Amino acid sequence: MVSWFRRARERLDAPRLKPRNDQRAMERVDLHELSPKLPAYLAQAAYLQLTFFETLGHVVASAPTTEAKIALARVADRALDKHEALVAEIVRRGDDPAKAMEPFRAGVDEFQRVTRGNDWYENLVTCYVTAGFLDDFFVLLGAGYTGEAATRSVAVFRRPSGSEDLVALIQAGIDANPRLGSRLAMWGRRLVGDTMLVARSALVFGANHDTDEARIEPVFTELIAAHTRRMDALGLTA
Amino acid sequence: MVSWFRRARERLDAPRLKPRNDQRAMERVDLHELSPKLPAYLAQAAYLQLTFFETLGHVVASAPTTEAKIALARVADRALDKHEALVAEIVRRGDDPAKAMEPFRAGVDEFQRVTRGNDWYENLVTCYVTAGFLDDFFVLLGAGYTGEAATRSVAVFRRPSGSEDLVALIQAGIDANPRLGSRLAMWGRRLVGDTMLVARSALVFGANHDTDEARIEPVFTELIAAHTRRMDALGLTA
Repeated sequence: MVSWFRRARERLDAPRLKPRNDQRAMERVDLHELSPKLPAYLAQAAYLQLTFFETLGHVVASAPTTEAKIALARVADRALDKHEALVAEIVRRGDDPAKAMEPFRAGVDEFQRVTRGNDWYENLVTCYVTAGFLDDFFVLLGAGYTGEAATRSVAVFRRPSGSEDLVALIQAGIDANPRLGSRLAMWGRRLVGDTMLVARSALVFGANHDTDEARIEPVFTELIAAHTRRMDALGLTA
Repeated sequence: MVSWFRRARERLDAPRLKPRNDQRAMERVDLHELSPKLPAYLAQAAYLQLTFFETLGHVVASAPTTEAKIALARVADRALDKHEALVAEIVRRGDDPAKAMEPFRAGVDEFQRVTRGNDWYENLVTCYVTAGFLDDFFVLLGAGYTGEAATRSVAVFRRPSGSEDLVALIQAGIDANPRLGSRLAMWGRRLVGDTMLVARSALVFGANHDTDEARIEPVFTELIAAHTRRMDALGLTA
């Protein structure tokens, strides 16, 4: 396993979990000492869903066929519904959604900028890979909270995201032009690095950095395993 | 009243209705002999809602504040929900939504292109003016059909579109920069012409063109009156 985040200082010898094959396995990984406070969790996630929606809006507008537009509009609607459900949680807590999201705007906007593809297919892969990874990540992180708001929010990230529609469209493109596949595999590798960085930015590190790194590593191992399965579904190597 | 569509050939002396002040008045105007078949009505309207959503997605992505993004995402969600409700009607009839919408794509895409604003505020006005006008138009046109599908579809166009959020954002821009108001008033005038043309493209003309023109004129008089009230709500002259 490649550690994406290990500082050069020293090698840790933390125990590693092998990638497992089901989502419930992921939730046994313990992240909650690094979890941000619930309002920050809700706000960053809500703003991320908003940017997924924006990117999906762009792929709807630039879709080459009416059929693709209709399918992608459904996917966009799902991101928007997730965003609105998280905004509703923020409002329910008595917080102002815009103020709550503001601190995350610059970082997430930059993430959106660096994950913008060069063409329609790369943007489809961006929607599929980044939203898939971050939904998984927020499910994992959400396991660290107690209370109904957290339970409802985790349920939001578990909602279907329409990834099967994205897979079908990307797959059709690769079938028609096999050289597209290797380009999209490269793009997927690029995306996972940036996506891990934005996920990592949600975590709150304590005084003992090495302990925290050791705690994060198995979590990201699980998330990368899920990413690998996601690329497999496209017939691409992660 | 200016007739936007009158052919140069001759002047008609059809009776004119004066603009009335409530929506129910509009529905007394009779358009149904010019109404397209229900599948075409559903398909063109569904594709139009999809383009409203695309334009709203663009204004969300280019919004200057997080607060504006959140408000506009709600408006976009409403357009998307209308689109999906209309798609559901098409599917319920046993038709393929993409095939049904295809004949309208070129015309509506061109409409979207010519109504694209030069900046964020012009695009907000585009969302407000064109969707407002066309929702009114499809309510009117829908009165010409019988049956539950038509009743449900008319109810879709009557759903709130979030125009109060658009008005608040545009109004705030004009308050901060009064010169913006005159530019947006000009833009509104430009938009209404293009919007009337796309509405007119939905109608089916018979052999007696002059009779049809006479029938259309009061309808568009009502729609322009509603447009004028919409511009009034911004403090602008239509």
